Amino acid sequence: MSVLQKNIGIYTDYYELIMAQGYFLSRKYTNPASFDYFFRKNPYGGGFVIFAGLANLLEMLENYKFGKEDCQYLQSIGFDNKFVEYLKTFEFKGNVYTVNEGEVVFPDEPIVRIDGSILETQLVESLVLNILNFQSLIATKAARIRLVAGDKLLLDFGLRRAQGLGAIHASRAAIIGGFNKTSNTYSARQFGIIPNGTMAHSWIQTYDNELEAFREFVKFYPETAVLLVDTYNTLNLGVPNAITVAKEMEKQGKRLSGIRLDSGDLAYLSKKVRRMFDESGLNYVNIVASNQLDEYIIRSLLEQNAPIDAFGIGTSLVTGKDEGALDGVYKLSVVNNQPTMKVSENISKITLPGKKKLYRFTNRDENCFYADGIELHNSNVPHIIYHPQQHEKNTPVKNYSYEENVKKVMENGKTIIKKPSLETISEFVQQRLKLLPDECKRFENPHIYKVGIGKDLMNLRNQLKVKYESSDNSRCSG
Amino acid sequence: MSVLQKNIGIYTDYYELIMAQGYFLSRKYTNPASFDYFFRKNPYGGGFVIFAGLANLLEMLENYKFGKEDCQYLQSIGFDNKFVEYLKTFEFKGNVYTVNEGEVVFPDEPIVRIDGSILETQLVESLVLNILNFQSLIATKAARIRLVAGDKLLLDFGLRRAQGLGAIHASRAAIIGGFNKTSNTYSARQFGIIPNGTMAHSWIQTYDNELEAFREFVKFYPETAVLLVDTYNTLNLGVPNAITVAKEMEKQGKRLSGIRLDSGDLAYLSKKVRRMFDESGLNYVNIVASNQLDEYIIRSLLEQNAPIDAFGIGTSLVTGKDEGALDGVYKLSVVNNQPTMKVSENISKITLPGKKKLYRFTNRDENCFYADGIELHNSNVPHIIYHPQQHEKNTPVKNYSYEENVKKVMENGKTIIKKPSLETISEFVQQRLKLLPDECKRFENPHIYKVGIGKDLMNLRNQLKVKYESSDNSRCSG
Repeated sequence: MSVLQKNIGIYTDYYELIMAQGYFLSRKYTNPASFDYFFRKNPYGGGFVIFAGLANLLEMLENYKFGKEDCQYLQSIGFDNKFVEYLKTFEFKGNVYTVNEGEVVFPDEPIVRIDGSILETQLVESLVLNILNFQSLIATKAARIRLVAGDKLLLDFGLRRAQGLGAIHASRAAIIGGFNKTSNTYSARQFGIIPNGTMAHSWIQTYDNELEAFREFVKFYPETAVLLVDTYNTLNLGVPNAITVAKEMEKQGKRLSGIRLDSGDLAYLSKKVRRMFDESGLNYVNIVASNQLDEYIIRSLLEQNAPIDAFGIGTSLVTGKDEGALDGVYKLSVVNNQPTMKVSENISKITLPGKKKLYRFTNRDENCFYADGIELHNSNVPHIIYHPQQHEKNTPVKNYSYEENVKKVMENGKTIIKKPSLETISEFVQQRLKLLPDECKRFENPHIYKVGIGKDLMNLRNQLKVKYESSDNSRCSG
Repeated sequence: MSVLQKNIGIYTDYYELIMAQGYFLSRKYTNPASFDYFFRKNPYGGGFVIFAGLANLLEMLENYKFGKEDCQYLQSIGFDNKFVEYLKTFEFKGNVYTVNEGEVVFPDEPIVRIDGSILETQLVESLVLNILNFQSLIATKAARIRLVAGDKLLLDFGLRRAQGLGAIHASRAAIIGGFNKTSNTYSARQFGIIPNGTMAHSWIQTYDNELEAFREFVKFYPETAVLLVDTYNTLNLGVPNAITVAKEMEKQGKRLSGIRLDSGDLAYLSKKVRRMFDESGLNYVNIVASNQLDEYIIRSLLEQNAPIDAFGIGTSLVTGKDEGALDGVYKLSVVNNQPTMKVSENISKITLPGKKKLYRFTNRDENCFYADGIELHNSNVPHIIYHPQQHEKNTPVKNYSYEENVKKVMENGKTIIKKPSLETISEFVQQRLKLLPDECKRFENPHIYKVGIGKDLMNLRNQLKVKYESSDNSRCSG
């Protein structure tokens, strides 16, 4: 089973179709255009974003077609016959340039560029935003949780609280950001993630008593059983019963894998429970904790030395609490081979015109990222980068080593890179995060990572601004 | 195209499969059981929830099967051959009892009951929660926006900021809660919603100047064009150009439908823009506003008499900002024909045992809802309802008229009700909200609507509590 793997065309905002039809009817639809995907603000008050969703986006773009019934539908709501005929055989044939999935990225960076006809690049806008905004939001949340969790096991328990079918990609993005396993069996199968789960209170309730329920469970799952101990009373009943069962298992040469705490004060309980197991010679039994966890609670638990081995995290992970959405946008930067940009009365909303490259400058001595620079694609690597709005702020970068981070990944609608495994992407995230200075990773008032623009891009932007302003005036006075 | 319409079985938490296999191997899997779906807290600090997602859930339960490849997968990760064989022909054959989709509901109410074998009722838990929690969250948000928006047009613009594929059901739930149209073409087609959209800045940028861009657009869309006026300068360029175009249209006997404001101070701009159009004799041109709107901003705009005719709402609507998730749970209430409940050290988390009915008592004189009562299904309608935790708090309800709100909607896995249209559900929401006292609808410290339990349910709960506590002690001392 696969979700939205074909006939994805109709998964788009209506105005994309309205505009696409307009381009079609005005016969300018094959004119070349480039759009940039970028976001404006780091979520969670944090200092970075993990870019995620790329593999799914590429797969969807490869299958970006309009089904027969979708075409009938569009005709029925008034779309032009010729345009609908065109859509029937429409395929996305654009080129996509992007940073690696899992890259650490920052506000205003052109992370993805899509080149193609104005019609096709416009049509895919909603899909690009829908897929990339969400997975990047969740991968970033997962990475924040991994930052505080050290090498503890992190389990995605979010399916039941996820935003509907958003669960599917949330679980994938959680792994990218640093989670180990998921409870979401659909996503486990679809994306090759290790599925994981313990037991619910209902299992216990179907037995006359908890001890019997535990005994039956470990009979079926002697290697993996994690017993939920808070159905009646954690310290007085659940844990003593788990110890009884663990001791019985030892007699058969087996070891109880773990127990789960799902309520109460997890710091207090985990310490008590750890001691109870240790005093019974069961120091190998793991403690899994769940119940409304997030990066702040986990940090607090570990600061209190709570002896928890694994965390199961649901709502806050898969919904990106407290953010809801990454504010990514998709803006036209080239049309008819001419650079263009959106001006705005809000200076920070003026976009970056032209085809661009994204450079990452690294401090070789300290082996960490220093700054990112954006420059026109046919210019040289910048020696100085300028603040995008306040050009008097600038910083020399010529003594730093650099990488070009945006690469072509799709040509004529076909992916031309070997798709990395989820594991590879996940490892890449951790490698890159290691290179990001700690100040950018802290939760409270993180250091703002430098992102500047090169001289040529700055000049082009200024020229266009003057041009638009003067045409403004001429037309206002006209 | 349909999403997750078949082979939905694997869209479940792994532990449901682990427990289901346990039930299967212990040969108790056909034992009867009942689960209740309920939530504990109204979202957004509000006073009610709109129940949504039911039609999709029923459709998914009717198609709750395990695909061949899913079964192969389960076998490959260690599930028992016989259990997997069983899953190959598994169908959900349970009975579902629920309130109408669109009903106004409150914390702790058993909104949905699922009766069936322990195996099947357990397996569907994750699906029930995933579908109902999310759509109810979004329908409630939409209803809150409708409460402040009066009869203004409300447009769902959320696809690009929705949580991935969560967009699909978010748009449906938005309509249930009171929205008129959606930008999400997929959901429009799938659920019969009116699609809606204007134009993006990119349309303007593909032309040499804004006036030309507007002229071309109204040529293609003379009836429906809504011109985006903030690409360069709203008051100095965008609106004057829109007026020019509207005047040109008038000469051809046509009328410009509207303009859209997507930035700046919407109260200030809408007043200025309204005056400019009115002074040009164009009082019929509508003003659509968008940009980070929610129920509070819309209330404020209307309090300022901003002359806005339609609101386009994205992020806060489709992600349920600032809540993320409804905390709905699914708890075992009957097993092997015996009532059961989950006890808890947190008294408010103790569940309600047994099969129950949900009554709504209405104040006939004032024609508004007075209180809801929960009682065992084979008891009489209660004359007094008791606070679920503090029994000394109670209220007589015998002089009120009542309705029984939970009805059987699925029998042996087949839906037995005629599915209402989305429009019907949406109208039902508004009818029911009219009957809810205003105090329960206000945003700030809403009145807590009374939900009580009947005497028989109270007694059963107390008996079970005593029983569990004594068995606790006996086992602890044993």
